[in-house]
Amino acid sequence: MDRNERARVKRHPNRGKYDRESVNAILDEGMVCHTAFQSDGQPFNIPMLYARIGEDIFIHTSIRSRFYDILKSGSSVCIAVTLLDGIVLAKSAFNSSMNYRSAVIFGSMTPVTEEAEKMVVSEAITEKIAKGRWNDCRRPNKNELKATGFLKMPISEFSVKVREGPPVDDPKDLDLEYWSGVIPVTEIRGTPVTSRDNANSTGIPGYL
Amino acid sequence: MDRNERARVKRHPNRGKYDRESVNAILDEGMVCHTAFQSDGQPFNIPMLYARIGEDIFIHTSIRSRFYDILKSGSSVCIAVTLLDGIVLAKSAFNSSMNYRSAVIFGSMTPVTEEAEKMVVSEAITEKIAKGRWNDCRRPNKNELKATGFLKMPISEFSVKVREGPPVDDPKDLDLEYWSGVIPVTEIRGTPVTSRDNANSTGIPGYL
Repeated sequence: MDRNERARVKRHPNRGKYDRESVNAILDEGMVCHTAFQSDGQPFNIPMLYARIGEDIFIHTSIRSRFYDILKSGSSVCIAVTLLDGIVLAKSAFNSSMNYRSAVIFGSMTPVTEEAEKMVVSEAITEKIAKGRWNDCRRPNKNELKATGFLKMPISEFSVKVREGPPVDDPKDLDLEYWSGVIPVTEIRGTPVTSRDNANSTGIPGYL
Repeated sequence: MDRNERARVKRHPNRGKYDRESVNAILDEGMVCHTAFQSDGQPFNIPMLYARIGEDIFIHTSIRSRFYDILKSGSSVCIAVTLLDGIVLAKSAFNSSMNYRSAVIFGSMTPVTEEAEKMVVSEAITEKIAKGRWNDCRRPNKNELKATGFLKMPISEFSVKVREGPPVDDPKDLDLEYWSGVIPVTEIRGTPVTSRDNANSTGIPGYL
């Protein structure tokens, strides 16, 4: 299988996109990626936080984790980020579907070794989970940076798949009385819950 | 690697659970799974709908898809379902985290060949995306069942990982003035959007 072949959308090829704007939008909106890799022929699939900086994707974990050892050695990975946008109910069960945007990136990762770059990645991940937080938290110290394994992969071989819009029914189903349409699905952030350890805090920050 | 070893939670072992009630709850609440497998040493990771029936998990796709061929031949897979529950902001970036519930299932899949079982799986997937829908849609006909590849895997080797509750700060960070706490994250369903092809429909069904 050549490099371009593995990232080509084969089912519903009309849903495939390969431009950087599309992949960036999904990576920047998503919060959790699933990282697939194999070890001794066994596939693994681990959910984790990530961040995009420019044309690279970064993940982080403990340097003592099993998969850090596997990934830093350059093992092939496949990282997927999926956003669920809606439940698509056609008049038939068969034509019912989901609206979604998904990005799949192929490649292999390299460890981030420079302390300065580790700090930049820490900032990107912190800002991704809560924009504005980096300037309002205790930043990582040398020991924490040392204990964290950061991994980097170029976003160079990827595909994006998007399904959007109303259901597409068979023409012969259109007169059926069943309702058809889309139920939107959204991920929302609720009211922050203050931890008990906030004796000196000035309250919930405005950026949240 | 023995069979039990691969499904053991190694990082934060206190977050690991291995009981059926925990894995069922996550599978029943989630909507999208990520299925990891490998082909010629290359890992793939595909988001898809699924359903649980008893102690089995089912996915479906076109019988003409590439990964149906790979999976039905008994290739090892790792299926992950992840629910994001909250953003955990500790006073330090390093101790910040996410609240989540994730299930990871290892094994290999077998195709569902009997038409009656295919119909039962169609019902489970339809009811999962919209409870009440199976009795209010056109059910699959013989040709549609034939064109759909259903795959089944026992939920026998799995692990569940859960992080819940407030941030856990280093004791020396507790007096810092930064706010700490949890921002809840929830997936919600919005108001159904009716498709234009509803001339004969009686409106949005009550079960939605």
